[in-house]
Formats: sequence, structure tokens, C-alpha cells
Amino acid sequence: MRNKEDITNWFKDLQDNICQSLETLDGLASFKEDHWERPNAGGGGRSRVITNGSLIEKGGVNFSAVHGDLPEKIQNALGFGPSTFYATGVSIVLHPVNPWVPIIHMNVRYFETESLKDHQSTYWFGGGIDLTPHYVNATSGHYIHQRLKEACDKTDPSYYSRFKKWADNYFYIKHREETRGVGGIFYDHLNEEKESHSFEDLWEFHQNVGKAFIPIYAHYANTNRDKPYSKEHLDWQRLRRGRYVEFNLVWDRGTKFGLDTNGRTESILMSMPPQADWVYDHQPAAGTPEAESLKWLKKDINWLADA
Amino acid sequence: MRNKEDITNWFKDLQDNICQSLETLDGLASFKEDHWERPNAGGGGRSRVITNGSLIEKGGVNFSAVHGDLPEKIQNALGFGPSTFYATGVSIVLHPVNPWVPIIHMNVRYFETESLKDHQSTYWFGGGIDLTPHYVNATSGHYIHQRLKEACDKTDPSYYSRFKKWADNYFYIKHREETRGVGGIFYDHLNEEKESHSFEDLWEFHQNVGKAFIPIYAHYANTNRDKPYSKEHLDWQRLRRGRYVEFNLVWDRGTKFGLDTNGRTESILMSMPPQADWVYDHQPAAGTPEAESLKWLKKDINWLADA
Repeated sequence: MRNKEDITNWFKDLQDNICQSLETLDGLASFKEDHWERPNAGGGGRSRVITNGSLIEKGGVNFSAVHGDLPEKIQNALGFGPSTFYATGVSIVLHPVNPWVPIIHMNVRYFETESLKDHQSTYWFGGGIDLTPHYVNATSGHYIHQRLKEACDKTDPSYYSRFKKWADNYFYIKHREETRGVGGIFYDHLNEEKESHSFEDLWEFHQNVGKAFIPIYAHYANTNRDKPYSKEHLDWQRLRRGRYVEFNLVWDRGTKFGLDTNGRTESILMSMPPQADWVYDHQPAAGTPEAESLKWLKKDINWLADA
Repeated sequence: MRNKEDITNWFKDLQDNICQSLETLDGLASFKEDHWERPNAGGGGRSRVITNGSLIEKGGVNFSAVHGDLPEKIQNALGFGPSTFYATGVSIVLHPVNPWVPIIHMNVRYFETESLKDHQSTYWFGGGIDLTPHYVNATSGHYIHQRLKEACDKTDPSYYSRFKKWADNYFYIKHREETRGVGGIFYDHLNEEKESHSFEDLWEFHQNVGKAFIPIYAHYANTNRDKPYSKEHLDWQRLRRGRYVEFNLVWDRGTKFGLDTNGRTESILMSMPPQADWVYDHQPAAGTPEAESLKWLKKDINWLADA
């Protein structure tokens, strides 16, 4: 049965567990926490930020649970009448020190609305995990896609391919004609009315996504964190971070929505890298790992294919 | 009489003159030019970029003249039926080396549309100049506002206060509750139907704005370019450049419109700084020039008041 308190508490625990694992993995830096409340509105959050670690240069792991009247903009977008809402979830973006370690992002959220007129209520789950390596090659996406497929298959054998395609389309930098990275999965508006699954099944699926985060990140972090890098690799990392900024500020619906509706700016923009560069019309030299990377920033790559 | 060829040629000359003046002012770097054409559409442009100068770290001075069918999105926004359009103008953003020199922006553009149904045509001028000092104090906006007021007053004594207010509202980073800098002037949709001025008067006003650019920038550049600066000043400059990125990618209508309608990405994003930083919840210490600067990022400051 649906119970938003249980869901909320599970997200809080997820934040705790992930922060603890990331501190262990980093070994040097620890999270700084800010509690915040929505001024003149309901709910708030716990923003946690880690900086200048041995693994993570700048990262955020945010929990929030907010409620109130559904803004008119969203009522219209959803085709709803006047309603109240409850939204809770965890959002993560980690920018690593070493350019060989990828940027990672996860968001898992639960949304509930109730009509003010007839008290009819509905809910849905939305979220995903995606990976943005600064350097990309044929095998960069193998591990994350394998783990995400396993997480999806436990609930529905069609979910991985459906949500993988959704991620390819969502994490797309249209003005660059590039995907943000190797993708992952993305889904939204999952509920028992739209899916052939019960609330319990969907909630279990959502939890499995949340639990997949640390094993995926630990794999990429541990495989790459000790690889030596030069000034040239750092230059490329900052250019790719510039693309990450472009995606988040121009195309990301969550960021736009947050900034548009007076969300807590510092929590929303924890996704920004510590530093980003722009070079006019930058073209990596043919045959370099940088040029190779750009070739893999395409939709519809089968990352599960044998390398 | 309206003549779009003359207007276009004047803008080309403006680009030439401004580039020449900026190279003289810089003394080290020179502009690199890219000619481009709109694929499957009409017109194109000359993008000119200058980097790693003694004064300018990264800057662009772009001219374009494009034409074709008015995209449906814009038809609707303007309340027009199917139409063709012609648009030409010059856009500039300069990011200086020295943090004591401000970032400057100018855009001057001319727009013409013609209805496909009855061949009725209309036109308007739009543009402005605004200044974004990394360090702001009570007198930072004095010179630019004085020069812009002089340029406005030649055509209409009401223009400066009207267009200054428009700039305060336009160059506003809503999610930070900060103006982008000390403002300047901004105007749009100026034509003889809406203003009590002839086409010739409005075109002269627009030219006066274009001609004001170099004297304004030269003043700020020459006053500040030799001021010594430290690592801390450069840190602050990169944080403020981050705010510039936020404004341009989240709120600037021109950037959004360009990226939405498959404009030439590298020309649109020439406004990006060479490097930008983000620090979670950065608060400058009380009493520092950085903290002082934030106090002046407000609307409705009378920069012409005696210092």
C-alpha cells in the first residue's frame, strides 16, 4: 500500500547510505550538510555537498520532501485542476578529480497529487541514472548498462530497453547534436494505471535503481581513479564540464523547473562543476582520445554488445 | 526611407570598426574570422573571435544577416500569420583578462517581416549595451550610464530612463535575485508605429548606440587594465563569470531562441567566458570588496547620481 512517510524515510536512508559509502570511497573529504525549508510553503530538504576530496572534486547528494499547492504552470502541463502535491526524492551529481573517472548523476523521486475538488489522488515514480565520462570509448558504457539492465529485469524485461531509449533522448544536448555521455536509464510517470505492475512492484523497481548507484559508481571510480593524467587531460575535462553546464542550464527540465518556481538555487545548482571552460569552435585533433570520445556521444548505441 | 541593404552594410562597417578599435586597444591579439551560411535557409554571418590578448581574454564580435520563413513559434509569439523575415545585426561580448576590467555586451539588430498573405511589411530596431564589472562599487556604472544618456537624449529625452529600466529588468538573474551587473540600456520593437519618431530618427538613435560602444569600453579598459590583481581577484572573477553563464543559458532570450531554432551554436555561445567556477553557497566575508560588489547588483540604482 502507498504510504508517503515510508517512501520519504526510505529516501532519507538512501541519502545516508550513499553519503556514507561515498565518504568511504573518497577517503579524504566528508559531506557538509545544510537543512533548508521552503519559505512561505511546505517542506524542505537536506542538501549535502562534498568538495576537494581525493576522488570527488565537487559533488552533491540532496534529499528533499516538499508539499503545497500545485503551481498553475504544472497543473496545466499535467492537465490537472487545482490540486495539492507532495514530492520527495534524492538527487546526486558527482564531479571527480581525475578526468578518467566519469561524472555521474542519479535522481529518484516520488510525486503525489490530490485534487482540491474531489480529493482524487494519483502518484508516480520518476528517475534514472546516467554516466558522463570525459573520455569515451566502445566499452565505457558497458558496466553501467549491464547493471541497470539487471536492476530493470527484476521487475519487467521490457524496462531496460524502453528506459535506455528514454535516457538517450532526454540526456541529449540538442544544440551540440551530442548525447551528454553514455546514457543510462530515465523514466517518469510510472504508476499502476499506466504500467502492468502494482504499486509494490514499481516501488521495488525504484528502490532497485537507487540501490544500483553505489556499485556502479564504485566500479568506475576504482577502475580509473589511479590512472595518471596530464594538463591536457584536465583541459579536456573542463571543456566537457562546460557541456555539462550547457545541458543542465539549457535543457534539463528539473533544473529549469526548479529555477522557474523559486526552488532553493544552491541545491538545484549543486550539479554545476567546480570549473568549466569554453574554447571557441574547439576541434580535437584527429586520432586523439578526445576526438574518439566525440564519436561515441550518439543515441542508440548498444553498450551491452561484446567489446 | 527604409533600405535593408544600407542598414546591413552599416552593421558590417560597425563590426569592422569595432574590431579594428579593439585590436588597437588590445595591442596583442587579433580577430579570427569565420564566415558561415545557414544550411537549408537564407543568409549567414561573419563571426569574429579574439582570444588571449593583453586586454581581452576571450571575446566575440559577430555580424549576421539572415532571412527566410518566420518560424511558427515566432509567428505565434508576435501574433503574426505566415510571414518571411529579414534580420541583421551585431552582437558583442568581451571577457577581459584583468578582473578589474568589466565584461561588456552590446547587441544592435534590425528586424523586418512581410506577410505572405497581403505583403504588408513591418520592421523594428532592438538592442542595448550593458556592463558587468566583476567588482562593483557606487561609481562603477557612472560613465556608461552618462554616455548612454547622452546617446539617448539626442533622439528623445524620455529614452534613457525608459531603456535603463528595461535593462534593469532584462539583465536580471531571477534565481539569484541579482542584476547581471550595472545595467545600461535595452530596447526592442522600436518603430514609427509605436514611437513618436520617424524611421530616420530611430535609425539614427540605433546608430548612436552602436557608436557609443567603443568610447564606453575604452574608458573602462584604460582605467582598469593596469590595476594589479591577485589569485583571490581571479577566483572572484571566475565565480562572477559563472553567474554570466547562468544568465545567458537560463534567461537570455536571444541565446534561448538561437539554440532552440538551430542557430549556429559556436556563434551564439561566443558569449561564454573562457573559464567559470562554481562554489556551493559561496558567501564573501563581510567588509570585503566582493561582499560590497553584491550590494550593488540591484535594480533601480541611479548610477548618474553624484558619487
